[in-house]
Amino acid sequence: MRLATIRTASGSTAARRGETGWIPIAGFSDVGELLADPDWRARAAGATAERGSEVPFDAAELETVVPRPAKILCCGLNYASHIREMGRELPSHPTLFAKFAQTLTGPFADIEIPAEDSAIDWEAELAIVVGRAGRRIPLEEAGAYIAGYTIANDVSMRTWQFRTIEWLQGKIWDASTPLGPELVTADEMPADARIQTLVDGEVMQDATLGDLVHGPEFLISYISTITELLPGDVILTGTTGGVGRARDPERYLRPGEVLETRIEGIGALVNRVVGSEGSDRGRSS
Amino acid sequence: MRLATIRTASGSTAARRGETGWIPIAGFSDVGELLADPDWRARAAGATAERGSEVPFDAAELETVVPRPAKILCCGLNYASHIREMGRELPSHPTLFAKFAQTLTGPFADIEIPAEDSAIDWEAELAIVVGRAGRRIPLEEAGAYIAGYTIANDVSMRTWQFRTIEWLQGKIWDASTPLGPELVTADEMPADARIQTLVDGEVMQDATLGDLVHGPEFLISYISTITELLPGDVILTGTTGGVGRARDPERYLRPGEVLETRIEGIGALVNRVVGSEGSDRGRSS
Repeated sequence: MRLATIRTASGSTAARRGETGWIPIAGFSDVGELLADPDWRARAAGATAERGSEVPFDAAELETVVPRPAKILCCGLNYASHIREMGRELPSHPTLFAKFAQTLTGPFADIEIPAEDSAIDWEAELAIVVGRAGRRIPLEEAGAYIAGYTIANDVSMRTWQFRTIEWLQGKIWDASTPLGPELVTADEMPADARIQTLVDGEVMQDATLGDLVHGPEFLISYISTITELLPGDVILTGTTGGVGRARDPERYLRPGEVLETRIEGIGALVNRVVGSEGSDRGRSS
Repeated sequence: MRLATIRTASGSTAARRGETGWIPIAGFSDVGELLADPDWRARAAGATAERGSEVPFDAAELETVVPRPAKILCCGLNYASHIREMGRELPSHPTLFAKFAQTLTGPFADIEIPAEDSAIDWEAELAIVVGRAGRRIPLEEAGAYIAGYTIANDVSMRTWQFRTIEWLQGKIWDASTPLGPELVTADEMPADARIQTLVDGEVMQDATLGDLVHGPEFLISYISTITELLPGDVILTGTTGGVGRARDPERYLRPGEVLETRIEGIGALVNRVVGSEGSDRGRSS
């Protein structure tokens, strides 16, 4: 099953991918709300396109697949081949940092280079979406807590990220992390899918998910030791080699470029990079 | 003005401190909800204790003052005398990490030592509560975005905190950070208030807020460059010397001890430390 959050004339709705278009799942304004219903699988599977409510694929506008997760946890340094090529040891524990719901943006939204940093970098990542609440989940049961998978690009403001020893301030710029386009339930996810970043069509990152050091079940179990996972929580699983900062010379995103983030079996994020408007200084409400 | 979130027979309510008790502010279930109303100052000031609704101080149960902030940002390494005594240079930028709403707990709640870590440490902190939304707030205007101040203890699981280079996994254990007991509006906050941690009455940390390297207005301006601050967002401003990990020998919290966190002009958090129940492994809903 494949789920998305689509824009409609009257707001947004969770939807299931049908044969010819998206079938709205009545009563749920986004996939996060849907997942909060313990019967989400049955509700999604049972939705029917009555009275022409189906939205043809080419007419659908896809929003951030889970727009308001209670928590977003991110794992750094998690691809074995990339860690080895950097001459490092494989880590015994996952390195974790956070994002906020405000950090997310849509799968096809523009991404702004802020006036305050010009070293804007890409990080293609598999995102886990939690389907069921749980604390201290044993590793062997962790799979049952995964609703499915989607794609994120942990676009990072590198100057701010490395100002101090904690990465957070380069990782939580508003609307910098596209998430989507669809959630693919765990049963339909291919085993060792390819993950790629392309900038204006040039392949920058290219790996397979089988190279993850700490896999999805381990991350669910580990993080749930610390904090209760809730339906709709999102876990980003880290990125592989080929980021702009590790290139010689360093290579960062420029206005007008198109950032494409692909995972086999899920689809692609396509985000145009735009310059800073520089006009919202002091904006308040 | 002094505000709190108090428990009532029918849930919780925001309340204003009166002469003899807490005066409920009708229509707002906690201080965070109140702050989301642009007229929060007038609504709080105008609340009256009609029909005996006032709750006497000794009967009031205080909850987490802002229980569901959209964002919690924390500044590390921020007291000048402590940084200097450690032989370090004063930082040019604030070191930032995150917490989640689930990390918070009440001002008088028990704090559990989890089964997975025994190095549980205290960090007394001044907490800023945001009163107005804003992005890229100029330093000279930042004061207008501060609703007021309260107390936090950034109780830290040190083993997990230092497993990797990112501190987060020692900072986000559920219900580990007490916040409260009251929000004191900025106009009533003393200039150079004393901040202390006591464990079973023994003074462990003792400093004054004038020693902060990055003050509240600077943090509001700096963080709002990255992400729009929203009403009810909470910023923890860092801790001073005297934490258990820096003692020789190291000294951590033990079951049965009472952790007291005081800031002059605000009040005190009083949290009993309890052992792990160890009974919620695999709990799910």
